[in-house]
Amino acid sequence: MNRFGIRFSFSTFGESHGKAIGCVVDGVPAGLRIDEQIIQAELDRRKPGQNAFATARKEADAVEILSGVFEGKSTGTPIAMVIYNTNQKSKDYSNIKDVFRPGHADYTYWHKYGIRDYRGGGRSSARETAARVAAGAIAKTMLSLLGITVRSGVSEIAGIAAKQFDFDHVPASEIYALDPDVEAAQKAAILEAKNNHDSVGGVVQLRIDGLPAGLGEPLYYKLDAVLADAMMGINAAKAVEIGDGLQSVRMYGSENNDPIRNSGFESNHSGGILGGISNGDEVRLNVYFKPTPSIFQEQHTVTTQNEEVDFALKGRHDPCVAIRGSVVCEAMAALVVADMLLLNMGRNMEGVSRYYNA
Amino acid sequence: MNRFGIRFSFSTFGESHGKAIGCVVDGVPAGLRIDEQIIQAELDRRKPGQNAFATARKEADAVEILSGVFEGKSTGTPIAMVIYNTNQKSKDYSNIKDVFRPGHADYTYWHKYGIRDYRGGGRSSARETAARVAAGAIAKTMLSLLGITVRSGVSEIAGIAAKQFDFDHVPASEIYALDPDVEAAQKAAILEAKNNHDSVGGVVQLRIDGLPAGLGEPLYYKLDAVLADAMMGINAAKAVEIGDGLQSVRMYGSENNDPIRNSGFESNHSGGILGGISNGDEVRLNVYFKPTPSIFQEQHTVTTQNEEVDFALKGRHDPCVAIRGSVVCEAMAALVVADMLLLNMGRNMEGVSRYYNA
Amino acid sequence: MNRFGIRFSFSTFGESHGKAIGCVVDGVPAGLRIDEQIIQAELDRRKPGQNAFATARKEADAVEILSGVFEGKSTGTPIAMVIYNTNQKSKDYSNIKDVFRPGHADYTYWHKYGIRDYRGGGRSSARETAARVAAGAIAKTMLSLLGITVRSGVSEIAGIAAKQFDFDHVPASEIYALDPDVEAAQKAAILEAKNNHDSVGGVVQLRIDGLPAGLGEPLYYKLDAVLADAMMGINAAKAVEIGDGLQSVRMYGSENNDPIRNSGFESNHSGGILGGISNGDEVRLNVYFKPTPSIFQEQHTVTTQNEEVDFALKGRHDPCVAIRGSVVCEAMAALVVADMLLLNMGRNMEGVSRYYNA
Amino acid sequence: MNRFGIRFSFSTFGESHGKAIGCVVDGVPAGLRIDEQIIQAELDRRKPGQNAFATARKEADAVEILSGVFEGKSTGTPIAMVIYNTNQKSKDYSNIKDVFRPGHADYTYWHKYGIRDYRGGGRSSARETAARVAAGAIAKTMLSLLGITVRSGVSEIAGIAAKQFDFDHVPASEIYALDPDVEAAQKAAILEAKNNHDSVGGVVQLRIDGLPAGLGEPLYYKLDAVLADAMMGINAAKAVEIGDGLQSVRMYGSENNDPIRNSGFESNHSGGILGGISNGDEVRLNVYFKPTPSIFQEQHTVTTQNEEVDFALKGRHDPCVAIRGSVVCEAMAALVVADMLLLNMGRNMEGVSRYYNA
Repeated sequence: MNRFGIRFSFSTFGESHGKAIGCVVDGVPAGLRIDEQIIQAELDRRKPGQNAFATARKEADAVEILSGVFEGKSTGTPIAMVIYNTNQKSKDYSNIKDVFRPGHADYTYWHKYGIRDYRGGGRSSARETAARVAAGAIAKTMLSLLGITVRSGVSEIAGIAAKQFDFDHVPASEIYALDPDVEAAQKAAILEAKNNHDSVGGVVQLRIDGLPAGLGEPLYYKLDAVLADAMMGINAAKAVEIGDGLQSVRMYGSENNDPIRNSGFESNHSGGILGGISNGDEVRLNVYFKPTPSIFQEQHTVTTQNEEVDFALKGRHDPCVAIRGSVVCEAMAALVVADMLLLNMGRNMEGVSRYYNA
Repeated sequence: MNRFGIRFSFSTFGESHGKAIGCVVDGVPAGLRIDEQIIQAELDRRKPGQNAFATARKEADAVEILSGVFEGKSTGTPIAMVIYNTNQKSKDYSNIKDVFRPGHADYTYWHKYGIRDYRGGGRSSARETAARVAAGAIAKTMLSLLGITVRSGVSEIAGIAAKQFDFDHVPASEIYALDPDVEAAQKAAILEAKNNHDSVGGVVQLRIDGLPAGLGEPLYYKLDAVLADAMMGINAAKAVEIGDGLQSVRMYGSENNDPIRNSGFESNHSGGILGGISNGDEVRLNVYFKPTPSIFQEQHTVTTQNEEVDFALKGRHDPCVAIRGSVVCEAMAALVVADMLLLNMGRNMEGVSRYYNA
Repeated sequence: MNRFGIRFSFSTFGESHGKAIGCVVDGVPAGLRIDEQIIQAELDRRKPGQNAFATARKEADAVEILSGVFEGKSTGTPIAMVIYNTNQKSKDYSNIKDVFRPGHADYTYWHKYGIRDYRGGGRSSARETAARVAAGAIAKTMLSLLGITVRSGVSEIAGIAAKQFDFDHVPASEIYALDPDVEAAQKAAILEAKNNHDSVGGVVQLRIDGLPAGLGEPLYYKLDAVLADAMMGINAAKAVEIGDGLQSVRMYGSENNDPIRNSGFESNHSGGILGGISNGDEVRLNVYFKPTPSIFQEQHTVTTQNEEVDFALKGRHDPCVAIRGSVVCEAMAALVVADMLLLNMGRNMEGVSRYYNA
Repeated sequence: MNRFGIRFSFSTFGESHGKAIGCVVDGVPAGLRIDEQIIQAELDRRKPGQNAFATARKEADAVEILSGVFEGKSTGTPIAMVIYNTNQKSKDYSNIKDVFRPGHADYTYWHKYGIRDYRGGGRSSARETAARVAAGAIAKTMLSLLGITVRSGVSEIAGIAAKQFDFDHVPASEIYALDPDVEAAQKAAILEAKNNHDSVGGVVQLRIDGLPAGLGEPLYYKLDAVLADAMMGINAAKAVEIGDGLQSVRMYGSENNDPIRNSGFESNHSGGILGGISNGDEVRLNVYFKPTPSIFQEQHTVTTQNEEVDFALKGRHDPCVAIRGSVVCEAMAALVVADMLLLNMGRNMEGVSRYYNA
């Protein structure tokens, strides 16, 4: 089941150390200007090897469009994109071939499929998320024409939480930090863990602005539920929260309800979604990432033959996956919104009749 | 989009104050013994009007199976169930006809559809969740044959959190409390809010035991992602957390990884899911419910004509939706697992060949 | 898998001799005026027991809307409809309980599910098609607002083929005949077969007028392919033909291509569909129905214990299923077109931007 | 909507003259031996330029597997395959840039999308079917392990019909003819039409052997209905017939029913499907292809500006698309059966319990 979305949908393929990863984006409305450079720019935001806070592994992540675009515009046919793995044979994986890395999907893939591509996690590697980012870049292109923006940033690392949410600061930050005041402390925590051959967790905040009221398809394709699905499906995500989420739980109803005036809502505890449908206010969500399971300390594990071993991973890994994960969250959110926009067009007869001039 | 699941799927229909609510469960394997009394027993757990901690509204919630069962067994055809609304005309809704109740879906349904069934929220009412519970009862019947159990309980209310998780205590508790030691305080908090015409939030914990390793369909129908979808789609849910979730974020990788021995995992921070696939350990998740938006204090709102009014809701409502919501979480989890079990049967050729004796 | 369609979709439930049959129609745009009498009128066209050319069995087929309609209009929520089986216990089925009726699904349901509702075929009975007709009536209501009509009639019975296609004659004909000149001969053939305890086949012609160019979602949800799916899925259908279909195969390309002038196509061999997309011309298709398998002559068959028996069916059955089947074809075609209309709204950015006033 | 199938599913991408065409096959059970040479051999059967009865255009159609296969076996992850277009820039399309070729999808794509890839039909070109054949090769690999074979051949060309159906003769025939006795006449008819700058139609017969009884998911994913969908969606297909189909319509029920003995069915008019489910007998269907719309005679048409022109196509085209189309029919049938096999595994509790050893 490697497909997401109903009308604006995408599927991905590819393994960490296979020939290539890629995606096929289906349902893109025809006539959308597609710019390979914009897609590449999004991929570059996710790309590894750019500073001390990410894995030192180098991947060009150069995207190539194979179909669906003609004379610079989408044609309404599937847009296939491929990213060739440039250094997939550079490493010897024999040391992890028969060993399940703790915290990884090695164990479960083996038990499910009876076979496992042990080279860097294969399909379960976060490398696959590059394909999501490429698909998301097309969704973002569509959203921008409709005045919708999706922004992301890292609000918390290793328990050090942002007190302000400055999305304008994010692009300038090596760790995509939302709060410049805590950024240095967050960086220090990452480096300390890294030096200890360890890793840290983090929290990503997403904001979606410019959504019209009405997006979301109750009762089983609600905007918040599909966002939760999209976010929880990202590698290492362990919790998703809409609006004030966790805080709401400790509030009274009289505090948590957002009063309405004719100029709009007086507050936004709900995170811009009521009954699974956007209310026109800013949509806000948080995604919680566990610490990278790839660490270099010795750990208890077993082999595929169920033999106990003590095992220390080698190689290069992100000390905090939330950072590059934020770009993936942003892509997934854009993809969800694009789908909801198309689905919503059938909501009432007035709009259908108007569309068909009937 | 009123359907959930792929192979073991269900759809629901009906509004709070229409003739009936109901569901159609599709993909139930033939030959499953279906007991209307077991379904009714599950519905009775969710039923309103049973004590001071739930709405005083009375609904019999009597289920009737219309199809798909012959001589007490499922036939492989869709099982339709209907619950007639017995007192749907008993109330005058003229006072909320043109008013958007803060925190409710009134506003968004109106903006989406251009029409709104104002009687008790119509389709957006939590009354619809009775249909989920009926569908879930069939899923649970199937799971029980495979040695899988799904349990739920309320761990936190109004900020008062359980310190122990005693699922055996839940059936005896009027608030489905997990911790008998804090139950009295939790009850007091509910009643205090109720007396203040207010409401409180709560947290539900779910445990799924007996799952084989291997359930979940990566990369876009992962077990955790679909559970997140299922839970976030329940009325008033605002956050979903798998395993240690929020705590994981503040741990080091070396603490959060679950070491493996040949007898199994040494810890279960992951909540029984790795890479979106069950690892054979207990699956554990938490669902966070906001306080009931239906409160009896005066609030700012507007009418469908965008006129500002101050509005105090009347009627009878749950002071804490998490309580009855826990039964819905349990049903949804059972439905997700049933679907995953069927999907998983095509995972590898060894199993396919064995199935077809080839 | 008891669901059809993507955006305007429906599912059905119920068995021939269970409590009820019914359907849930999902994705109906809000604000559509729903008239129970119009739905009933469509059901009455399909209803058995109206003359000598259909089964003598009486069923009121009275439809009841359970949800999705408020103050006479669709609300955007699922429309559930139920038709109670009024005389489902009136007959003794013990004689066919263990016997597979030749030409029926008895044999295959038994081998698939290991269980079989032997009362009148259970779920495999054509009685289920009443639910399709109810769903189709809602689709037709929507189409009528957009100037689209779907008409059907019987063109051939027992090898006696229409030479003219007078759709205005159909409502007045007891056998929904398209050609009044051959109608008497067709009727005589039916009655002769009936007297011989036998049955005859027939061909239904469908015409869809008023379609805008552009409907159909290539490459795997083409208009013609989905119509073929919809028609072949109707009980007893054995072939589907679009446009000149079978004749086209014997023509040269130079004869079969439809030349284009600025006033439109000069001919319509294609049946109004090119590349799976409507071209704005009339869509025309034929559906071929085998003779009713239920006959009263003695036939070779076996029991569920694989014992050979000679078996003559009793009861009341249509001598020619194509007649009432034509109403079902019409309903299915309307449902397909309604779905295609909604899907098509996302075809290009110009339309999306216009819809959202962006 | 460029995806087909539910469990064993595939999607395709690519245009006739873009960089590449390809497919992503999802749901392939892990552990299936995947042989690139077998896939290439299937592609070679469909490849153009092999004799006088097909287009003279040359395409290597060399397939490359990008993902989903590790050490020669499927891993349970999506199998992406790409076929680069080697001579896509070799031709000048300026003469057809603004002209709608009669009988082609040019007109409808333009009206749907407002944009059109005029190079050889773009996405609507039959070139896309190479991707289906690659996907089908994987399905056939799976079927062969289960003892299921899918065979195809051309039964009729230009009205010259086979009287015998010799599938063993097909591989040796340049036109994949089923009847060696009429093959010469069929060839002559093709060449005559070709010399006249014209084209002819044809009929493909498919046989599926070795199916277990029970495949097909009633009521809306029936085996026959999905086969009809699959076949009618192939370029130039205009009719689909199951079993005796058209002949059945002119038979009496007493002739058309297949009597059953304890050794099996005494005849097979049904084509191996009853109630949408396989009965264990041979599945037989016919697909009717119109004559190639690409002809070299002058035809009436209009431009995108709706100006009338008389237009004669240039280039190289198949004089009879049914021939290479037969390989595509075979691939699609294999893909449908593979999907049905996986879906069927959830049919009853006995099988589910056995699978999970419960």
